[in-house]
Amino acid sequence: MEWLAKVHLNNPEKGIQLMNSYMHDDINIQKRHDEFIENTVANYFLPLGVAPNFLINEELYTIPMAIEESSVVAAASKSAKFWISRGGFKSHVISSKKIGHIHFTFDGDQKEIFDLFTTIKNDLISATSVLTKNMRNRGGGILDVDLIDKTNELIHYYQLEVKFETCDSMGANFINSCLEEMSKYFLESAENQFDNSNTKLDVIMSILSNYTPECLVHCEVACPVSELIDGPDFSSEEFANKFKLAVDIAKIEPYRATTHNKGIMNGIDAVILATGNDFRAVEAACHTHASRDGQYKSLTHCDIKDGIFKFWIEIPLSLGTVGGLTKLHPMVQLSLDILGSPDAHQLMKIVAASGLAQNFAALRALTTSGIQKGHMKMHLLNILNQLGASDVEKEILQRIFSKSAPHHAEVVNAFNDLRSSSKSKIESE
Amino acid sequence: MEWLAKVHLNNPEKGIQLMNSYMHDDINIQKRHDEFIENTVANYFLPLGVAPNFLINEELYTIPMAIEESSVVAAASKSAKFWISRGGFKSHVISSKKIGHIHFTFDGDQKEIFDLFTTIKNDLISATSVLTKNMRNRGGGILDVDLIDKTNELIHYYQLEVKFETCDSMGANFINSCLEEMSKYFLESAENQFDNSNTKLDVIMSILSNYTPECLVHCEVACPVSELIDGPDFSSEEFANKFKLAVDIAKIEPYRATTHNKGIMNGIDAVILATGNDFRAVEAACHTHASRDGQYKSLTHCDIKDGIFKFWIEIPLSLGTVGGLTKLHPMVQLSLDILGSPDAHQLMKIVAASGLAQNFAALRALTTSGIQKGHMKMHLLNILNQLGASDVEKEILQRIFSKSAPHHAEVVNAFNDLRSSSKSKIESE
Repeated sequence: MEWLAKVHLNNPEKGIQLMNSYMHDDINIQKRHDEFIENTVANYFLPLGVAPNFLINEELYTIPMAIEESSVVAAASKSAKFWISRGGFKSHVISSKKIGHIHFTFDGDQKEIFDLFTTIKNDLISATSVLTKNMRNRGGGILDVDLIDKTNELIHYYQLEVKFETCDSMGANFINSCLEEMSKYFLESAENQFDNSNTKLDVIMSILSNYTPECLVHCEVACPVSELIDGPDFSSEEFANKFKLAVDIAKIEPYRATTHNKGIMNGIDAVILATGNDFRAVEAACHTHASRDGQYKSLTHCDIKDGIFKFWIEIPLSLGTVGGLTKLHPMVQLSLDILGSPDAHQLMKIVAASGLAQNFAALRALTTSGIQKGHMKMHLLNILNQLGASDVEKEILQRIFSKSAPHHAEVVNAFNDLRSSSKSKIESE
Repeated sequence: MEWLAKVHLNNPEKGIQLMNSYMHDDINIQKRHDEFIENTVANYFLPLGVAPNFLINEELYTIPMAIEESSVVAAASKSAKFWISRGGFKSHVISSKKIGHIHFTFDGDQKEIFDLFTTIKNDLISATSVLTKNMRNRGGGILDVDLIDKTNELIHYYQLEVKFETCDSMGANFINSCLEEMSKYFLESAENQFDNSNTKLDVIMSILSNYTPECLVHCEVACPVSELIDGPDFSSEEFANKFKLAVDIAKIEPYRATTHNKGIMNGIDAVILATGNDFRAVEAACHTHASRDGQYKSLTHCDIKDGIFKFWIEIPLSLGTVGGLTKLHPMVQLSLDILGSPDAHQLMKIVAASGLAQNFAALRALTTSGIQKGHMKMHLLNILNQLGASDVEKEILQRIFSKSAPHHAEVVNAFNDLRSSSKSKIESE
């Protein structure tokens, strides 16, 4: 920290003081945070907010969200409140298989490698038995191994595709360890088998895939169209149709789909972070899923049939509620406590609901009053803080803008007016 | 906070105590953090680490990274050190245009809407002149507006596509405000124009796109193959070929590409977070970019030609170094200070280098010793903390595993052995 401040900061002393002021008072707790990663110099504070009133499968949740963007927690809360009186969210896990590959090249005859695979398939699984013992006791482990010929796409390229069930852990380390162990056994077997021939088998890499289309959760909301929102300028039916059209646009237009899904991920990542899961993994899985048909598309879907409005999401979510940071990070533990200590399947359902809620709020705002109204209202405090407004000034300006959606420039102007008027007031006194 | 603790926690008092212990000691600073979002109850600590030795365009950087995953900072640092003696990273911004759309339906004749657009195009831009004044003074503003016919893909669906230059701000609020203002003017013009006809123009939504293929940065590393790594079992040339093969696999296999790009995003998001930018926006843009050819693919590329190994990335990054949290969040300010107060273009170059470095480290590990060796070494402390190891026990076990890559089960066994042996030692004393 000293080195960093000395080399990179204009005022090293002030920098060190700042970093220290962001440390936890308890030196042991701070040490634990420091040891999560390498070269730690401080704690980056992300606000941890809560979105109450989530009715999911008849149970009421308050969802913890760690996120720096204003209006995400507010939007989630608003959707939750809207749906609580319309049946709430229905969420179910379709399957929770994870997947990993041993990527290898083989320049011999295709038949030879398939024969070898058939012979050693069971031994490949047995080779990991020490590693999988605990997982098997918990009901998980290796589900299957397959040999896949990819030589049509890349010369000599094959995969061993391995499917896993990792119960309540996300399982990345477990899967990678298993794959590397299998890979060793596979290489040895191949060396023995092809010892006297010119054929060569080379393992390129052994690693889990973050794309988990078989680790899938579905969540939906539904109600009669007539029970949807009436606005000053539109009927329930008009709202439903416009909302559906907004989803349909995100199905055919990647420019829109990207932003549409980004909004969904606002709701998802905030819970992922709060519960100590890996948001890069979830982001990658969801976006790949969005592009699976050859064109990048919306992750949510909307249907209006027989007077019923239905809105749903189906996404791959590979999550854990044990292992990783779950026991180590006090705020993660707190978040899981707030959710009633869910298992991995329950957490998948909750996270999917959070994503769907976020998208509902965004599309509702976009198709009615526009996104900026709510957004700028939420953003108002940030702008005022940036301008250095006092508490009194903040209160006055929040009242001034309580019913409108000010643009950034308008806020700045109003603030300057207020300052100069109070300044002239002071001067004239 | 009290409500939350009472309703959702088994031990409300302990929960409140915990949340309070995570607050900043300075009540004014804490208030500012609270006001970033809504319903804030605590600060979520993300470790802020630094990766030194990044030589980018002949300048030396130490890159701040906010991330909870172990080994990401270590991997970035390792790559940076590797390339510092091989010419470093060369990074340049291709363009920095941003984009937004007014999505609308029009049920009249195509010619009518194109005629209207031609007539009012300049007025559409003028309608935003109050909003764009400051941005124009800084050299940015609205670059162009186009009318796009999408009726082949969805009945009656058109777009006004607007391109922006937002200088050093990310510009989301600016773009959305401009679009909503243009949308108002557009609707009024259409109402005047089609007043006496049966044709109807309906704005569905007006919003920026997070997919920004024209806000693009390129970063590369290159060196003679002979100057690459020699290992105990492989030559420089073998390493180069295997590395390239790993990239090629990520070009044809979405299962692998997802994980490949996830690793890149580890390096990118950590800097995005530290510098107060929006990682959901960047994730969405990069992954959509990865799927732009109809199949989800690697974001990095590798080439070996005339004895030169070249490895590069080209990604859309819409970033800001003013506005948003940049002035408000002391840790964001610190991170920007550490980077020498970069402008948005410089930050794009730095972030791209961080992503490329991360991918280089991951592929290097994967194609040589396997990913688990480094990963489990880094993860060792987390496992030991989880087991409740004392400082002495941690030191002993870190020494035991200093040269190997232990699996989770091995660490647990070694820890239990150590505990029981010292226990029996104490008992026998």
